[in-house]
Amino acid sequence: MPGPVGAIDVQRYEGEVLSSAKDLLVTEEPLEIRLGHGPLGERNEFRLSVTMRTPGHDEELTRGFLFTEGLITDPAQLVRVVHCEDVKPEERGNVVRAELHPDLEVDPARWQRNFYTTSSCGVCGKSSIDAVHVRCATKPADWGRVDPALITALPDRMRAAQTVFKHTGGIHAAALFNREGELLILREDVGRHNAVDKVIGAALAGRPATNNRLLLVSGRAGFELVQKCVVAGIPLMAAVGAPSTLAVQLAKDSGLTLIGFLRGERFNIYAGAGTAKS
Amino acid sequence: MPGPVGAIDVQRYEGEVLSSAKDLLVTEEPLEIRLGHGPLGERNEFRLSVTMRTPGHDEELTRGFLFTEGLITDPAQLVRVVHCEDVKPEERGNVVRAELHPDLEVDPARWQRNFYTTSSCGVCGKSSIDAVHVRCATKPADWGRVDPALITALPDRMRAAQTVFKHTGGIHAAALFNREGELLILREDVGRHNAVDKVIGAALAGRPATNNRLLLVSGRAGFELVQKCVVAGIPLMAAVGAPSTLAVQLAKDSGLTLIGFLRGERFNIYAGAGTAKS
Repeated sequence: MPGPVGAIDVQRYEGEVLSSAKDLLVTEEPLEIRLGHGPLGERNEFRLSVTMRTPGHDEELTRGFLFTEGLITDPAQLVRVVHCEDVKPEERGNVVRAELHPDLEVDPARWQRNFYTTSSCGVCGKSSIDAVHVRCATKPADWGRVDPALITALPDRMRAAQTVFKHTGGIHAAALFNREGELLILREDVGRHNAVDKVIGAALAGRPATNNRLLLVSGRAGFELVQKCVVAGIPLMAAVGAPSTLAVQLAKDSGLTLIGFLRGERFNIYAGAGTAKS
Repeated sequence: MPGPVGAIDVQRYEGEVLSSAKDLLVTEEPLEIRLGHGPLGERNEFRLSVTMRTPGHDEELTRGFLFTEGLITDPAQLVRVVHCEDVKPEERGNVVRAELHPDLEVDPARWQRNFYTTSSCGVCGKSSIDAVHVRCATKPADWGRVDPALITALPDRMRAAQTVFKHTGGIHAAALFNREGELLILREDVGRHNAVDKVIGAALAGRPATNNRLLLVSGRAGFELVQKCVVAGIPLMAAVGAPSTLAVQLAKDSGLTLIGFLRGERFNIYAGAGTAKS
């Protein structure tokens, strides 16, 4: 089972000279999620999805993914997540079984349809947004007015805690903070969605609640990341990069405060208290 | 049908002052791809996938996606791509029908399985790589030794041609160049995979061939982007950001020259002529 970082030999071109060097890269490996219903060992399970991810925190990734994609609506519906042993040796560590609560009614066909539906979220902006709201028990609470000193301090705190980025410069990060700006959970992954799912999965596992926290992401704020925050009830999302049109629309319709282009002492508020009417 | 850029009102925090401003954002909307077999109007079609994308070049995106994901192995298998009219008014422009050649045998169940398989690419690094090679008629040609003057000139040329990025600062780009460093095709999209599929789809449509070209991407070089280059027979891929372990392994096993961290006058060669042995 590889770790989150791998070393390789490269040729580095710099100052008009090509030389051999060692480089550290972020590990990328597939993860297969199987849904199981009933005790381990019985063959009542089916493959749900395969995603490319950075190994580590696979249980949190699975829990967060199932929850933010609407496949479970309550963390208690998931009994546990285990790495499967009944796989080829080279696949060890890359296949997990998400064991659902025996009381939960499971219809694989419906789940696969559901997965399709929630991933697709309709085929116009409005239906995409409606599909998210259908899956949400409650909308995020109102964050209220944004404190600039709190917000501008976040990126440095996240970067200081990013161990894999320090080595590789090539990984996405997501971090959950409380209202005082304390970093509660940080996760890194080659996929930006995975980093967010890992943070939310960790929070759902009984560690910090999400409903009075903010999430910072290292990249851009696309629709799918805002959707995950809305479903998880996180009231404020901040991104180092730019949001998309549909991400802003979803944030406004959901009562989520959305901040983008958070760099140094500046940022934009795209939705939430203090924003211009639109 | 929205354009690639949308304007919204934001609150901008800068120099300790919060003020109202206009901001331009990249448009993000869902695109549903339906596969059809036979003439338009007959109901012999099924939904293949929905992806979030920036509107524009939908035909190229669809062609590139079907090809790089292995659903068609020859561009001639695709007769045409049309926007569907039999949809709700608000979905107009977001649903396309990819019309397959009548001689092509189509089994929706097999195609959906195939799609699953090719997307998943096995559940260990080696099987992921093997799955790519199974789908490739030929491996990319050997690019040979890399010319630093050619490579370091690419990012500025791509940025100069990026119209949406100039306005929004929030979009991915992919560009196909020839061996002389001339930009042949540039596409921008909110999704990095889509930008690459649009470029490849444009090349497949009879414009520049891919087998003696190089592809530059604005972000990182993950497994799935390298996979698309390998399937399309592009011999060199350069990325502004970092590659992952599996991306480098796939490049080495496929004979693709892979360059990363291309910034200013420096870059790393991760696979290809002149690289250290590993």
